[in-house]
Formats: sequence, C-alpha cells, structure tokens
Amino acid sequence: MMDIPGEIAPEQIVRLEHDAVVVLDQRLLPAERAELRCRSAAEVADAIRTLAVRGAPAIGVAAAYGLALAASTGDDVDAAYATLAASRPTAVNLRWALDEMRPDPTAARARRIHADEVERCRRMGAHAAPLVPERARVLTHCNAGGLATGGYGSAVGAIRAAWEQGRVERVWVDETRPLLQGARLTAFELETLGIPHAVIVDGAAASLMARGEVDVVITGADRIAANGDTANKIGTYGLAVLARHHGIPLVVVAPTSTLDPAAATGAEIPIEERDPAEVSERFPAWNPAFDVTPADLIAAIVTEEGVHTHPFAESLPAPVRAR
Amino acid sequence: MMDIPGEIAPEQIVRLEHDAVVVLDQRLLPAERAELRCRSAAEVADAIRTLAVRGAPAIGVAAAYGLALAASTGDDVDAAYATLAASRPTAVNLRWALDEMRPDPTAARARRIHADEVERCRRMGAHAAPLVPERARVLTHCNAGGLATGGYGSAVGAIRAAWEQGRVERVWVDETRPLLQGARLTAFELETLGIPHAVIVDGAAASLMARGEVDVVITGADRIAANGDTANKIGTYGLAVLARHHGIPLVVVAPTSTLDPAAATGAEIPIEERDPAEVSERFPAWNPAFDVTPADLIAAIVTEEGVHTHPFAESLPAPVRAR
Repeated sequence: MMDIPGEIAPEQIVRLEHDAVVVLDQRLLPAERAELRCRSAAEVADAIRTLAVRGAPAIGVAAAYGLALAASTGDDVDAAYATLAASRPTAVNLRWALDEMRPDPTAARARRIHADEVERCRRMGAHAAPLVPERARVLTHCNAGGLATGGYGSAVGAIRAAWEQGRVERVWVDETRPLLQGARLTAFELETLGIPHAVIVDGAAASLMARGEVDVVITGADRIAANGDTANKIGTYGLAVLARHHGIPLVVVAPTSTLDPAAATGAEIPIEERDPAEVSERFPAWNPAFDVTPADLIAAIVTEEGVHTHPFAESLPAPVRAR
Repeated sequence: MMDIPGEIAPEQIVRLEHDAVVVLDQRLLPAERAELRCRSAAEVADAIRTLAVRGAPAIGVAAAYGLALAASTGDDVDAAYATLAASRPTAVNLRWALDEMRPDPTAARARRIHADEVERCRRMGAHAAPLVPERARVLTHCNAGGLATGGYGSAVGAIRAAWEQGRVERVWVDETRPLLQGARLTAFELETLGIPHAVIVDGAAASLMARGEVDVVITGADRIAANGDTANKIGTYGLAVLARHHGIPLVVVAPTSTLDPAAATGAEIPIEERDPAEVSERFPAWNPAFDVTPADLIAAIVTEEGVHTHPFAESLPAPVRAR
C-alpha cells in the first residue's frame, strides 16, 4: 500500500515510548502539529477525556498503550484500567482494548492492537469501496479518518480506497459542531490525501441532498448494538433521516472492536453529555456528544470481515479478539 | 403591550437620523452593543451586505430608511434604489420596502413602514400563539426576533405571545452556523424576555426530536413563494424534513411583506451564496445562506392576516401595501 506524502503515520497519531504515551494533539490541528506526552495512565485518560486523542478506535489504542505504560512503570494496573475505562462512556472500543490488554498488559500487545486496528481499516476500505458509486459525491460527518483510528481511517479509509479506484468525484465534509472535527480534521486528512473536498455547515447537508449532490453518506461509529443501531457523533442520526428522505444510502464503516453484542439495541448505549460551554459560554446549552441511528436507516455496516446487511442481528460478526 | 426591561426597542435596532441611518451592529452582539452610523444609501447597503443589520423585515426597514436618507440628502434616488436592492438577493422584503418607498421616499413613510412591520409582528404573535401546544418545547432556528424584524419578532414574537399565555415550557435554540444567529441573537433576546431556553448545535435537533423533547418548530422566512415554498436560513429545510419524520408541526411566521406572489414556487427564489470563508478559512467550502422548504412540509404559515393552511396558493393573502 502506497504511502502518501505528508500523510500522518500511525506512530505519529499515537505511540508508546519507554516513559510516555505520546499523542498528536488533535485539539490543535490543523493549525499546529504538537505532541502531548502522557506520563501515566491518568494522563492518558486526561488526553482522552479532553479529546487530545479522539475517535473510537484511536482511544482504544491510546488506552491500550496507557495500560502497558502503567504495567511497565509499576503502577497499579487495576487502577489504571478503571481510570482509563471511565475516561469516556460511549465508544465501546475503549473497554474492548482494555479487556484485550488486561491479561497481558505489555507494550508488544498494545502495539499489536494498534497495528491490527490499522490493518482492519485497510480491509474495511477494500470491502467498502465497491459500495461507492462511480463518480460519487460522498458526504461524511465528523472525523473517521486515520486520526480517529490510529491510522488509515474507517469512513475516510473507505473513501480513500474508493478514490484509489477512481470512484470518488468529491467529498462533502460536515463541519461537525461543536468541535469541528470535520472542518479541522477530515478536511485536513482529505487535503493530505489529495481528495477533492468542500466543507459545509451541518445544516447545509439537507440542501445538498435536495439538489441531487450527494450519492452516498459514509460515517464511522462509536458503538454498534447487536441489532445494528449505531451511536456516532451528534448529527449522524439527523443525516440518516435526511438520507432516507432523499433515497441516499448510509454506509457505516467500523471495525469489529466497535461492536457491542451486550447492547441489544441502541437504547442501551450510554450517550456522553459534555460541557455545555463547548456549545455556548454565554447562554444555557445542551451538549450531547453522540446520537443513535436506528439500524433501519442504515443500508450497510462494513467491518473488516465484510459488508453486513439487514438483518444486522444475524449478519454482524463477533468482535475480534486480540492475538 | 408591556415593555420588557432591557428589551431592545425598535428605534435602537434601526432608525433614521437627519444625516444617517443608525443600526445596532448585530455582528457584535451579544458581547457588545455598538451602533453603526450609515451616512449614505451605499453605507446602508454595506451594512445589509455585511450583516450589521439582518433579518428579512429588518433589512427592508433599513433599506426604506436608506432611500429616505438618499432623498433627503439630495442623492440620486434611483441609484440608491439600485444599490440597496442589490445588497442581498434572497429576502424579498428588501425589494418590497424599496418599491413601497419609491413614489414617496420620505422619512415619514419609512418610519411608517417600520412601525407597521412591528405592528404586524404583534398581530402575527396573536394569531400564532394558539398554535403552540400547552407546555410546549419549541425549537427555533436562526434569529427571527425583534432584531430581525425591527422589533417584536416573527418566530420569536409568536413564542413570546405564547409565553405570555403560559404555553411555553422552554425554547430550544439552534445555534445556526455559520454565523450563529441563534446562539448569539435568539438566545440573547430570549434571555431579555425571561423565556427559558437552551442552545444546541444544529446537528442535535434530530436527537431532541427522537427523545420527544420538541412539540413544535417555529421559524421565520426570507421569502415565501405563491405556493407556500419558503426560503429561510440554511438548515431550515433539514429541520422541516426531521420534523415531518417525527410528526412535529413546522409553523412559519412572517409578515406579508415576505410573500412573493411573482415566484410561483421555491425554485424561482434566488439563493444567496456567501463567502466560503464564513465556513472555513483554511479549506474549500460551500456556503449557501438559505435553503427552500417545500410547502408540503409546512403545517401553517402565519402572517398578520391570520393562520394560513393548505393549499397555500389559495390561503395566502396578498402582500400588504404601505399606507
């Protein structure tokens, strides 16, 4: 697989050094590329909580490195597990990675989890690309790129694989308020990859659809229930309703580490509410970070195992186990 | 009608002095209350173009004052008309007010147009209030308050009248990207009026609806075609689709100066595209300021003449004529 000049490598997004987990501080992108050194599991948890590292698979990887750091530095691994697990509630990848690490919290295992997540993204891209129509105008929401997965990307990985096959005409990037992960991170990654793109305010997506300017909506996921109900960045559910209204398919791309068979439906997925000041520092505000898209609004869920369609309760695979 | 302490009076929003049209600079609210003195029709047009004064009825009033200023200072009234008419393309109130002024471009006539717009808002509020369910959770988009109409407000006027009747439990305020007229202006006005409110990102509206937290959506309008298709701030069309999906009525509140019988349908309404830098200064962007909501997604249109329902082609009145 060809390296793209300027592309951010997995070890630049998050890596383990002997005394720290080092993350690219995503809060400062694209203006500044600065690294944040987290010298304990608690500092990794802070980095996750404050979104220096974000994206469901990426926070799982960061947490795995955090647990390895705690073990290697002689910290209490159980306490580190608890601190890391509590850092954010919605993405199930966090808990998945910690559970995969717990029996063997070594650096080697954490690095394997990271490398495997990136490899899963490449496989997802290969599975998802054929779902993208020729000359597609793709709409995506939030950032489900390499920054969100530790490398390559889930939704952006699918777009990238389709682009390499000549199937993508352009990408519409929802800016994704309140924290602008689309306008800051996805646009940045698409620029790096050389894929034509334009940022829109979240409220403009419906208008684009009405004009016939969107052929497929592709997003990542933070947690997928057993029936296919999918939690993702706030605004995804609205996009799903709009896509259905306009006859446009919604494709969700996520590794099996995002699957939560223990949640029968989306109603069992905890939705994080963040500081209202992210929305308004001056007036009262409500700031849920995620919403749940019912499975019936999703055309297909793509994991590293393949393309899964209705009924998802039967088609979705089991979450992967770390080697 | 009781004055509300701290409420912004019509003459504070926009007024004519002997040598200037003075507007409250809405770009700076709520942080700062600063006035902008426009000493010519060209400067009024600049204030309209740059959104120092915005909102369909308010820009009509400002343009009326601008034409009166041109006439009183001996400027070419035809040139002033052309400059003002070209300042923004979508709101038909601008052209309406200029056409009402042209035969008699006096200060008295402009002030009567302003007073009449405010009075129409009060009448709209009275007509619209009974459409608001008891204990309603109202969702609104952009700012259709006194700032947008020269006083009292259209959508916010309806909310205010319903609130005075004890019908409003709270107002959800879409922040309305890219320029945050909801988060900056509507929240500010609701605070002034003492009406409970919370700001949300535009992408969170669908989630609120799914949770059963929205009873009615009320918006203003920038232009209403003969068949009821309605242009309003970008994001309104998406809200309309979401409201329909969740069985929630959408009520549009606008004076008859917003009606454009010459536009048979929304397809004939010009949609302003503004500087992409309003959305992203760093990446390519697309920035339409408005979208069109098809009439079939609108439960009722309220003007000063009453509540109009389907078929709007038969129920909508003619635009008012200035006295």
